[in-house]
Amino acid sequence: MTEMLSAAALAHAVRAGRLTPADIAERCAETIRAQEPQVRAFATLDLDGMLARSREAGLAERPLAGLPIGIKDVLDTAALPTERGSPLYAGYLPATDAAVVRMALRAGAVMAGKMATTEFAFMKPAATRNPRRHAHTPGGSSAGSAAAVAAGMLPLALGTQTAGSVIRPASFCGVTGYKPSFKLIPVLGLKVFAWSLDTIGLFGAHVGDVAFAAAAMTGRDLQPDEESEAPHFALAKTARADQASPDAHAALEAAAEAARKAGARVTEIELPPEIEASDEAQGVIQSYEAALAFADEWDRHREQLSDMLAAYLADGMTIAPETYDAARRTARRGRHALADLFAGYDALLTFSAPGEAPEGHASTGSPMFNRLWTLSGAPCVNVAGLTGASGLPMGVQVVGRFGRDKATLGAARFLERAIAAA
Amino acid sequence: MTEMLSAAALAHAVRAGRLTPADIAERCAETIRAQEPQVRAFATLDLDGMLARSREAGLAERPLAGLPIGIKDVLDTAALPTERGSPLYAGYLPATDAAVVRMALRAGAVMAGKMATTEFAFMKPAATRNPRRHAHTPGGSSAGSAAAVAAGMLPLALGTQTAGSVIRPASFCGVTGYKPSFKLIPVLGLKVFAWSLDTIGLFGAHVGDVAFAAAAMTGRDLQPDEESEAPHFALAKTARADQASPDAHAALEAAAEAARKAGARVTEIELPPEIEASDEAQGVIQSYEAALAFADEWDRHREQLSDMLAAYLADGMTIAPETYDAARRTARRGRHALADLFAGYDALLTFSAPGEAPEGHASTGSPMFNRLWTLSGAPCVNVAGLTGASGLPMGVQVVGRFGRDKATLGAARFLERAIAAA
Repeated sequence: MTEMLSAAALAHAVRAGRLTPADIAERCAETIRAQEPQVRAFATLDLDGMLARSREAGLAERPLAGLPIGIKDVLDTAALPTERGSPLYAGYLPATDAAVVRMALRAGAVMAGKMATTEFAFMKPAATRNPRRHAHTPGGSSAGSAAAVAAGMLPLALGTQTAGSVIRPASFCGVTGYKPSFKLIPVLGLKVFAWSLDTIGLFGAHVGDVAFAAAAMTGRDLQPDEESEAPHFALAKTARADQASPDAHAALEAAAEAARKAGARVTEIELPPEIEASDEAQGVIQSYEAALAFADEWDRHREQLSDMLAAYLADGMTIAPETYDAARRTARRGRHALADLFAGYDALLTFSAPGEAPEGHASTGSPMFNRLWTLSGAPCVNVAGLTGASGLPMGVQVVGRFGRDKATLGAARFLERAIAAA
Repeated sequence: MTEMLSAAALAHAVRAGRLTPADIAERCAETIRAQEPQVRAFATLDLDGMLARSREAGLAERPLAGLPIGIKDVLDTAALPTERGSPLYAGYLPATDAAVVRMALRAGAVMAGKMATTEFAFMKPAATRNPRRHAHTPGGSSAGSAAAVAAGMLPLALGTQTAGSVIRPASFCGVTGYKPSFKLIPVLGLKVFAWSLDTIGLFGAHVGDVAFAAAAMTGRDLQPDEESEAPHFALAKTARADQASPDAHAALEAAAEAARKAGARVTEIELPPEIEASDEAQGVIQSYEAALAFADEWDRHREQLSDMLAAYLADGMTIAPETYDAARRTARRGRHALADLFAGYDALLTFSAPGEAPEGHASTGSPMFNRLWTLSGAPCVNVAGLTGASGLPMGVQVVGRFGRDKATLGAARFLERAIAAA
């Protein structure tokens, strides 16, 4: 394994004149050439384009300082095919870039290519392997984005999460994954799976890297202050705790203990039923919306959808609007209850995934510890640094209050440092 | 003027065996051939396609019974160019149909063509004329959709509203315009202008027609019951009442009086400041989001944007994220205050527009009486039937509680009948 690339540190080195954007692009290209044949993180790799663009004038002065970035292939790019993990869109060139792609380019990022995704960011796996152990899944759906950062091929990559597609692959690959508050990053130009859920997220080496990149792209104050107080964490194992592996429990306890040692308060809580109810509601909302989001593909190109997706959409079509509306009301009650809960805590600490990355490539693992938080719209961060029983990465998840992304990233960075120090 | 076509009545006639879908398409084609050269409602007219599709088997049994429908040209159609009122997208063929287009086709509608829109549904007028008086604007941005229904060319048309683009042209053209609750109709495949605001709406001859069509397309229970009680209206002239013309005030008073005569209670109220504040917030949110929504067009094709739009986007780019977030908080407070207000009333009654359709085609008129309600997400209906000082149509607007579309349509139909009876 090549060491991961810190976006914040590289940008700092560029601004200090120690590196040029072209130096960084060369370094990424070298790692990509070495790793990509095994890892298969890219749907479309544009090495020549990346190297050429890294030499353009004025990059070093921009917030992202010419850092190479990978774009999940469900996000539109006018210059590179946007295949969405589906043969139906082989070679497809959209008319415009997704808004978030424009935001990244305006901030001075250099596009390295499109990152492999499961079919339409659903369940049919991409070809990507887990760079930590190739026989294991990298998770999904943002498989290539997480893997490329984990393998040191790229300092930054964009992903998306509808159920657990940022936090889970980040946990499996041992990188930081940040799913911002719903709508913090506009989703225009994303191939919609479920419009109430789809959220664009970021992968980077460390919490400071995703905070730096999100701030640079959005123009928002998202970088945690250095002198913030130790947070009060609510440790919430959720109603699905019995489905997490023993080593996932051990990692979560280790994270809590590290946080305590570093001066944080950690209080174990049970989530109120109004919050837990959102877990099931997420499934209803995702299915119902997907059935409408893929109406065209279903009506006109059904034979090009995987059996897995076709069955899922067929099921979604059986959901009555009233059932969907009831799920939306459940979600709203859950959001209010979660806001109330945060009156007493700075952040929640919970599982990122049920365990280490499973062996094999037939499945991308389960989003069971992510669905609830995606529906809530709350900012989530996978904090890396711990390992499971077999030595693969085992992330833990920090969940913050809706709209309080800076504080959430601050709590995640506190935990990251506490784990590193423990 | 040809008489308007009632979607509900035509569908009923098809189901009763008195008409075939092909009969209706022929009748529409005849009116289109006569009116379209003057009215210019279509961006792309597909008469042959409409006539051919109206002969397909099985249409009569489907909810929309083969009714011709016009699709605003900011909605994607894979079979017909989607030009978005901009030379930048001349001849553009999207890969997929918008979800709402699929919903209409699945329900048995027959696409007649794409309806003229202002540039990207913003302010630069379409070529469309007001069918009630050609020298006057039909309003915008859903100009062609409103005009085609008003001219009797089509029984149904889809539009969109970000500020006032459904209710205003409906008022100017003397048709029913229905802007559903935010997210009732999915916006996938709509060229986004401002994602917190863009709402897909329907035009039809009468309230019963848009209720029928919305129910047919969404599978929802939206058709008002026949035996509902007379509603209690809150008459709300808003803080902008002094900008409505004397005949707009007269029409609103006449509508209130007709409602009272028909047995409704009408109570004049002042909107609380938390609700009024959303009017200004709408402007901030629309500008900020548009600047991101058109990032690609701005960066790569600025010379093909109108000066009006380019200046608007440049202004949007100067809005700080914190200002935008403050506007979103204002909107949230406004939504809560509006929900509270509806505890005491069934619907609000207010202006649809500041007056009759202005003369000339350089402007589409003002959305000043629509912005607030669009941001609130509340269902809105333009009720036709009254006229202004010069004899042009003058609509009044019924606003309902978020998510209570059936009741809102019921109140609008009550008012429509009251006006007709007065």
